[in-house]
Amino acid sequence: MVKKVTAALIIIGDEILSGRTKDANLNHLAKWLGSMGVILDEVRVIPDVAERIQKTVNEYRATFNYVFTTGGIGPTHDDITAENVARAFGVDFLLNEEAKKLLEDKMGKENMTPERLRMAMIPDGATLIKNPVSAAPGFQMGNVFVLAGIPAVMQSMLQDLEDRITGGPKITSKSIHVFHGESKFANILSEVETTFEHLTIGSYPFYKEEAYGATFVIRSAIEENVDQALNSLKEKIIGLGYEYFAGEAPK
Amino acid sequence: MVKKVTAALIIIGDEILSGRTKDANLNHLAKWLGSMGVILDEVRVIPDVAERIQKTVNEYRATFNYVFTTGGIGPTHDDITAENVARAFGVDFLLNEEAKKLLEDKMGKENMTPERLRMAMIPDGATLIKNPVSAAPGFQMGNVFVLAGIPAVMQSMLQDLEDRITGGPKITSKSIHVFHGESKFANILSEVETTFEHLTIGSYPFYKEEAYGATFVIRSAIEENVDQALNSLKEKIIGLGYEYFAGEAPK
Repeated sequence: MVKKVTAALIIIGDEILSGRTKDANLNHLAKWLGSMGVILDEVRVIPDVAERIQKTVNEYRATFNYVFTTGGIGPTHDDITAENVARAFGVDFLLNEEAKKLLEDKMGKENMTPERLRMAMIPDGATLIKNPVSAAPGFQMGNVFVLAGIPAVMQSMLQDLEDRITGGPKITSKSIHVFHGESKFANILSEVETTFEHLTIGSYPFYKEEAYGATFVIRSAIEENVDQALNSLKEKIIGLGYEYFAGEAPK
Repeated sequence: MVKKVTAALIIIGDEILSGRTKDANLNHLAKWLGSMGVILDEVRVIPDVAERIQKTVNEYRATFNYVFTTGGIGPTHDDITAENVARAFGVDFLLNEEAKKLLEDKMGKENMTPERLRMAMIPDGATLIKNPVSAAPGFQMGNVFVLAGIPAVMQSMLQDLEDRITGGPKITSKSIHVFHGESKFANILSEVETTFEHLTIGSYPFYKEEAYGATFVIRSAIEENVDQALNSLKEKIIGLGYEYFAGEAPK
């Protein structure tokens, strides 16, 4: 039996929903979690609204092994993530001396305005997450990890989390592609998928100049099943009279 | 009183959650909805799992004015969106003659395999959405619009929806930027925002080579308020002894 370890991501930001900014954190976090043996199982993008943050945090932390949030931990009035995570947990929202010191060390004690001090306000009982880029820390509260929204900062914070996440078995993923429409292979894909336990096959059509086709991606935590399924799929493609090519379709 | 018209997007796809594929539909749809006077209020990314699709469709269609889905309407075994939208609505999932004809016209009657016919299976009572790129249609069921996942196809389908969406007032958005840390402006941003009704100000820090600062974006359905708030913010920035620059920070 394969034990799944799951995570969910909450992207907090009006700027993503208005189309002003393109999110770049989902894809990076998805790959990082995959490398840790954790399955990203749901993502929600919500606006900077207090009740929505609290509700989503509480729903997700009860449902998934790990929850990540990005965005809304800066010094301005629209940065309301941290205080609403505190409310979701029902704990006080306090000036954290360790966070204050990190900010002072980076910015100079004399430059610590009340607005900057806001970035040292952390829910009571949380553990800080280091920010090597700009000092203002994220934090972990229970199974919820509160990260910055700026991609470079968010990515730098993940280093501090490698020891705090316990993943399940790593997912093995192997792929081949064909230069024919995916519908020709629909039956054999389904046949192979149902032959193996804990294994999924995705079919991803591509259209390029003068070529179209599909990439078939086989994924499982059981590497042996991936290899067997791949061999079986290759045989069936040949059996249908088509050719397959190694890996994903060239980009 | 400004009447908000809201929408939500359901991105259906294991390939987004695994990090294999970067979603490109959220940002495009967000901007398109904005141009229609519709506020994208939530996005959820879920795996290709029947119950998750049904649950999310039913939750969203009761909550938002419009619901969009992307992904999972191709011919292979992992394309399960259409049948689960039918189940969410409690209607039959049937071969649609109009959709069948569209596919035949594109692919040739002699090439209509059972797998391709799958793309003509549509919930009973749905209205088709034209696909100028590859013929296989999307569909509208009540306030739910089921679109393709491939960005070029998804975008081409939006043309057919312009007459089916009734938006609220268009959002006006204006911005200025500064070359100082956003924390210096936290108070005045908050002051200006609370002075005006139905108006939000977002503060978006940027870090570039040899320059950092923040862009302040003022948004409202009431254009007059945006202009007044912008003037007020400019005065207050000058009042603090800083300079502002027009528009968003250069990329």
